This record gives sequence, structure tokens and C-alpha cells, in this order.
Amino acid sequence: MPSENNLFAYNHGQIIPLDQASLHISDLAVQRGYGVFDFIKVQQGLPLFMEDYLDRFYQSAGHMGLEVPLSRSELRQVVKKLSEANGLEVAGMKMILTGGYSEDGYTPTDANLLITQLPLVLPSEEKVSRGISIMTHDYVREFPEVKSINYTMGIRLITQLKNRGAEEVLYVKNGVVSEFPRCNFFIVQEDDTVVTPSSNILYGITRKNVLQLAGRRYKTEVRDITLQEVLQAKEAFLTSTTKRILPIVKIDDVVIGSGKPGNATLSLLQDLIELEELNVKKRLS
Amino acid sequence: MPSENNLFAYNHGQIIPLDQASLHISDLAVQRGYGVFDFIKVQQGLPLFMEDYLDRFYQSAGHMGLEVPLSRSELRQVVKKLSEANGLEVAGMKMILTGGYSEDGYTPTDANLLITQLPLVLPSEEKVSRGISIMTHDYVREFPEVKSINYTMGIRLITQLKNRGAEEVLYVKNGVVSEFPRCNFFIVQEDDTVVTPSSNILYGITRKNVLQLAGRRYKTEVRDITLQEVLQAKEAFLTSTTKRILPIVKIDDVVIGSGKPGNATLSLLQDLIELEELNVKKRLS
Repeated sequence: MPSENNLFAYNHGQIIPLDQASLHISDLAVQRGYGVFDFIKVQQGLPLFMEDYLDRFYQSAGHMGLEVPLSRSELRQVVKKLSEANGLEVAGMKMILTGGYSEDGYTPTDANLLITQLPLVLPSEEKVSRGISIMTHDYVREFPEVKSINYTMGIRLITQLKNRGAEEVLYVKNGVVSEFPRCNFFIVQEDDTVVTPSSNILYGITRKNVLQLAGRRYKTEVRDITLQEVLQAKEAFLTSTTKRILPIVKIDDVVIGSGKPGNATLSLLQDLIELEELNVKKRLS
Repeated sequence: MPSENNLFAYNHGQIIPLDQASLHISDLAVQRGYGVFDFIKVQQGLPLFMEDYLDRFYQSAGHMGLEVPLSRSELRQVVKKLSEANGLEVAGMKMILTGGYSEDGYTPTDANLLITQLPLVLPSEEKVSRGISIMTHDYVREFPEVKSINYTMGIRLITQLKNRGAEEVLYVKNGVVSEFPRCNFFIVQEDDTVVTPSSNILYGITRKNVLQLAGRRYKTEVRDITLQEVLQAKEAFLTSTTKRILPIVKIDDVVIGSGKPGNATLSLLQDLIELEELNVKKRLS
């Protein structure tokens, strides 16, 4: 695997060495935290479920009044070239679109598009087989449907997470759970129904895939979930592009189910891994 | 006045030409919109009320777990040197502190400090004598007490402001007003009591000064204000470092008071201008 020093990035319309990729400080991301992004997992050198991620990236841009400076086919080409240049087998491809070089430091202008690719380490088998502890926090994201670059709350909570020995923070507002800063949330009820929140969330691509996979084995529901229900669930897990499915065994010191990753969770993880492999195979054939 | 091409900025510990000031894209402002800032007005080459702004800047940094890489006296020196290098008579000095070059794109590290200075145009006499129209929007900032760089909501509302012919947007939540994206809010009641919101706001330096000045002439109150009260006020105005005091004559198509800037508002503006001049004189003597 090439070291980060040998990686390339897309910046100001060109593929250049990552260590030279920069923005002038007048960019609205620096001045006002204004931008959107998306993040695609690359396996065997191929971006997985790319069209879904591109759909969401263009949608996020539209919500924020930003125009992606490349057409979808141009963007696909850049992603392909960058992936070839970097030659990473397992990686995360991140596209960031900022408010651009603003003259008055407030009004968006021609958006700046950055694309970087970094090696990705998937959760260890040990972590998956043990499950993780999470905490909850009273919050709902400002524009949940937009993958904006604003992670102020999540980042401010890093220290608290560490102090409490939790790995992730689940946002809860008025007793209803929504999502993690970077992951979606699922529970499995006593009767094996798989449930995931319907509103005030970013609509994750992995969430969508897992929901489809779950539909093959179990009853599924997409609706508001109260924290009370969560604490009585048989299983709980999170989904994300980089983490796939991670079993949750403890929430705010309450043990979930048996305190160990459950059967439904682990079956769905296996299904997801197979779906990803299928996606790669299709693209390679 | 020098053109922007001849201006200097503080970046990576040095005073360099502004057009060369940049951040590597791994900075957490770019990756996660994570950072704080402050903005000082410079008159006759001197930063006004600097200690108040420095207090707030260090406080904002502390709230976000960021460390300003300069001591207060070092920062004062840099501000002085930059001001001398740029030679601007009336300007805005902006200090931005970001989450730094993060290896994992999420965890804050050594903060990056940027300082820029740009010419400042104060509101025209015509605008002050006419007053402005504003709109309201249902929102409260995430961390109102912190001058974070997150202006997602304010910036997303720019188009709506233009369409409605309004100049600023006043945030209202559960019927209680708080602040504008970049300004504080005041009303003057029928009995000449001057009132400004107490909570869910950034504590503006100009707000503080105006509150003190108002106390010399009128009864003052710092408390929650309902939108209903606002619409029945005799006068309304906003305060900010760059705008000083701007009379508000219309809110969401409701005319405030006589529909013209009121006597209290204009008297306080005169008082504020005198206070600023006094601050400059003291520093020059």
C-alpha cells in the first residue's frame, strides 16, 4: 500500500500530489464552515455503489445552493483516474464541495471541488464479535438530509465519549432517536422485526442496503423509534460506509439484549459483505 | 487604501501576502467545518476594544477544545504588525482558529491560526436614515455562546432574504427572538425602555457597549423577548462590530413604530460613534 506521501488528490481541477492540495483561506469552508461532502468505499480498487453516492452528493449540493463543477460522467472519470493513480485496494474516496472563494467571506460563489482517497481500515473481527458501547446525547442535526461538513457537535463530544468509554454518540431529541454523527441506527425487536428511524437522519447508502437485505429475512419498519424502545430491544447496531454493521451491546450503561452481538445483526453483516462482493464482481465482469 | 492584492495575512506562523495564504485540505475547517473566529474593527489603524474581542476569541477556542497557538501578548503583537503591514485606516481584522491538520479527518489537533485584514465599508448614512427591513426564521444556533465558523443556516437563507427584500434574518424559536446570524437585536418599548435578549445569543461586544450607553439615558432590560413584543415595539435595531447600530423599520412586512428610525436608536448610534472615537483617542494619547 502506498504511503500517504505518495497519494494524489483532485484539487483546483487537477490531480496533484495530496500533500500539495490546498485551498486559499478565503474559501467558505474555512470562513464559514460551508460545504457538503460524500464518502465512497473503494474495494479491489472499485468504488462501491457509486451511483447512489453520486445521487446523494449532487442532492446535498443542490440543498446548499452549490453547483458541482463537474457533470456526473466527468466526476466518474476523475474518481476512476484518481483511484488508478493511488492504486489503493481498500480505501475511502471523499468528495468535498465548498462554498468557494468568497469575496465578502459570506456569499457562496463558484464551488471548489476536492477529492481525496485514503487507505481505509475496516472494523476488526474482534470489535465485531465483541460489539461496542455507545452513549446518547440530546441533539438533532440542523439539516439532517444534507451531508454538510458541519460536525461541530460530534467533534465536541469526542472527549466526553472517551471519558465515558463509549465509541459512538447516538442523537436523541424529545425521546426519539435519530442517528450518529457518521452512522445510521437500527434495532431488532423481540419478534425479530428490524426497525430504523425514518426522520431527522442522513439517508445512508449502507442503511438502504441493509434495509433491503433485512427485508429478505425479517419484517422491517421505518419509523420513529423512542429511546425507551431502544433500551428494550433484543439487538441494536449501527451502519456506515466505513464500518458496515457494528453490533451495539450497551447504551448509556444499559446492556442491550444478551450483551453480545445478536444473530440478526451478524447475519445481516454477512449478507452485506456478500452484497459488496457481488457489487465488485459485477463491475469486474 | 492598498488594493487587496497588496495586503498581508498571518498564516502558518508568518505574515505573508494574503493571496498566498492557504490551508492544506486536511484542515478540520475544510473537512468538518470545525473552527472559531473573531472579528475586530480597526479605526485610524487601531483595533477597537481589542481586549474584549481577545477575551471572546480565547473563550470560543476553549469551548471548542482548541488552543490558540499564541499567548495574548503574542497575538496582540501579530495584530499590531499585521495592521502596520497593511496600513488600512478602516478595516476588519479577522482571526480564525481551525481544528488543525487532522490525520483521521475528525479529531482536532494543533489548531491553525489565520489572521486577515480587509478594508471595511460602514453602513451608508442613507441606509441609517432609512432603516432596514428584516425577516424572521425559526431557528436557534447550536452553540450560541461560541463564535464558531458554522454559518450554514444564515448562508442558506441568503436567497430567501433577497427574494423577500429583507436585509437580515432574525432567529426566533418557540416565539422568542434571539439574534441575527451576525448581529444582536434590541427593541425600544413605548416607555423608552431598551431591551435586548438574554439567552441563546452570541454576546456581542457592540451589544455590551450599546447596553452600557443605553443605561445612561434609559431604563434597560436583558431578558427573553417574544416576537409579539417585538412587533409592538416603538423602535427596533441591530448591533454589530461592522454595522454599529442599524435601525429596523419593518419585520416580516409589519411596520415597526412610525416606520422610520426612532430617536432612541439614533441617539444611541451617536453615543456609540463617540465611544469609538474616545477609544481611539485614548489609545493614541
